[in-house]
Amino acid sequence: MAIFDSIQKPTLLLDEAAVRRNIHRMSERARAENVRFRPHFKTHQSAEIGSWFRAEGVTAITVSSLEMAEYFTAAGWNDLTVAFPANLREIDTINRLAGAVKLGLLVEMPETVQFLDSHLTSPVDAWIKVDSGAGRTGLRWDHPGEVCALARLVEGSSRLRFRGLLTHAGHTYPVSGAEKVSEVYLTSVERMNWVRQAVLETGFSRCEVSTGDTPGTTLSPTLGQVDEIRPGNFVLYDAHQLLRDVCRPADVAAVVACPVVACHAERSEVVIYGGAIHLSKDFVFDGEKNLYGLVGLPDGERWTDPIPGAYVRALSQEHGIVRLPADVLNQIHAGDLLCIFPAHSCLTVQVMRRYLSLDGHWISTLNQ
Amino acid sequence: MAIFDSIQKPTLLLDEAAVRRNIHRMSERARAENVRFRPHFKTHQSAEIGSWFRAEGVTAITVSSLEMAEYFTAAGWNDLTVAFPANLREIDTINRLAGAVKLGLLVEMPETVQFLDSHLTSPVDAWIKVDSGAGRTGLRWDHPGEVCALARLVEGSSRLRFRGLLTHAGHTYPVSGAEKVSEVYLTSVERMNWVRQAVLETGFSRCEVSTGDTPGTTLSPTLGQVDEIRPGNFVLYDAHQLLRDVCRPADVAAVVACPVVACHAERSEVVIYGGAIHLSKDFVFDGEKNLYGLVGLPDGERWTDPIPGAYVRALSQEHGIVRLPADVLNQIHAGDLLCIFPAHSCLTVQVMRRYLSLDGHWISTLNQ
Repeated sequence: MAIFDSIQKPTLLLDEAAVRRNIHRMSERARAENVRFRPHFKTHQSAEIGSWFRAEGVTAITVSSLEMAEYFTAAGWNDLTVAFPANLREIDTINRLAGAVKLGLLVEMPETVQFLDSHLTSPVDAWIKVDSGAGRTGLRWDHPGEVCALARLVEGSSRLRFRGLLTHAGHTYPVSGAEKVSEVYLTSVERMNWVRQAVLETGFSRCEVSTGDTPGTTLSPTLGQVDEIRPGNFVLYDAHQLLRDVCRPADVAAVVACPVVACHAERSEVVIYGGAIHLSKDFVFDGEKNLYGLVGLPDGERWTDPIPGAYVRALSQEHGIVRLPADVLNQIHAGDLLCIFPAHSCLTVQVMRRYLSLDGHWISTLNQ
Repeated sequence: MAIFDSIQKPTLLLDEAAVRRNIHRMSERARAENVRFRPHFKTHQSAEIGSWFRAEGVTAITVSSLEMAEYFTAAGWNDLTVAFPANLREIDTINRLAGAVKLGLLVEMPETVQFLDSHLTSPVDAWIKVDSGAGRTGLRWDHPGEVCALARLVEGSSRLRFRGLLTHAGHTYPVSGAEKVSEVYLTSVERMNWVRQAVLETGFSRCEVSTGDTPGTTLSPTLGQVDEIRPGNFVLYDAHQLLRDVCRPADVAAVVACPVVACHAERSEVVIYGGAIHLSKDFVFDGEKNLYGLVGLPDGERWTDPIPGAYVRALSQEHGIVRLPADVLNQIHAGDLLCIFPAHSCLTVQVMRRYLSLDGHWISTLNQ
């Protein structure tokens, strides 16, 4: 129990063995289907955790900002895709990076392509962002004419190298279970291949497809006709993935250990030191209600599976309000620890900024 | 336009003049009613902004964590209340602080009082946290027997000095307009005085009442029978306070300037570089929908009022999806800036970690 004895305030605990298992499983999957594995590092955000991917032969990564690209470049990575629409105001940073590493950028507007063409000082890989159904960013998959026109514009640029089409099938997140997730994922892949075909027919000799959200790449029986996958969340998973049957409790590799500061048996709740600044304000719908996290207890050198019926009901800046079954609540005292499975691990890592490994050493991130 | 020209990525802009007006107004209000003003520094989290309160004669402050207490102690403050239930696991930090400054702690459980009594090495002020209707933490106001029993336990301790009763009327936040907010606020004050009377009748000669949420202390025609107010959010305000008619647009002292990275005219939306890691994932209900922020445009050396009909519809880690009226959207290009009025400024400051003042200098916080 030494690890729990040392905890004074909300602490992001990391189970390195679980992380390594998650990385190994996804690497094997990509290898077996002969697909490039370009993991998204926005979830763990850590140079040290990043280094665990090298053991699996990973050499190319995905990041969500130029800041993150600079951090991982400093950690020795030299093939990075920034999976976010290119921000023209950061052209100086883009040029600094493009001069040092193999940099991939996302484009979806002709004006962005024109700006990059006239301001880039080194070659950059360009991926056209395609909206394959998620409705967030990208050119619509069912408007292939726009995609082909932009591909030609990229091809005509002296600094941009056309690589292909990239999507994030974010619409796999709200659905549950292998069958439904696979259907959404494979439909997205099918749409991407339909657009790819349209691009190839306009005279391109090559057009890659990059995809890969955690639910789809975890659950789909096949990765489909793609050149590259970019999942990120799978490295830690979280309560969201657990509630959608994407992973099992043992796969969740990070929890926030939070001290109990008040007990309110009459309303079946305890108050923890652990609020929006520790877990983020993101939540997940479990079929009945929105919740901010599931709840385990310290258990030797790790933590228990989530307690049935227990959940984080509300968060303010520093407070978490946790609903507990009476038999559990009656055993809880001020100063005890609860292990919160965060609703969304990416954002929890972002706010917590460092991990305490179960072996007792601190693991830093981009932000600390 | 120099300040906007310098912006490359999401940047938290601060209007110092508006902050100083907000501080002055609340200080005047407390002075006029002869109530101690102990502002909550969890909103701005900045030593520099804290120093602007000294010009108004403020000498006592509120913080939400011991970490924040240490930061502001280092900045020269020596009378601090940590408005969060005492966390027993941080007893060493409590003792370090209590030996250096006048420290106030919140208690609500007998076991916490007993633990503090046997572990404190210096005297500490104890406030009993009372739930005056918000339902988050504290002993219930309508169970005065429990409050009196805990007050006696505190009084019997050799290290804790009983100061009085403290509440956060957080239930003023969901209501709108001066009349309703005042009713909730003044009902909370009335309940606190009813409990105070119960405590005094058990033989105490003195029992202070501390209250003060931003909506109530801004809008109520009187602060009522209280010894101390602790508002925090008023220093910046935000979209939440604006939509509840607690403040006017000119009072909102901080926005996040975000570059546009994609335009989707067909769905009346643009995508900004500005996501959950810049604004936090908190939202506010405007009567029809939840929104993550309101939207202004750069305007000379400041920003415009919120554009009617414009709002942040969705946030992912780095992306913000902004709904804009067609006439505004048609003028927007990649690389333009939108000024987002955050849903909840306290959490936005927490994730952004520093401000850019409109005069061009950076203002750091506890976290950077």
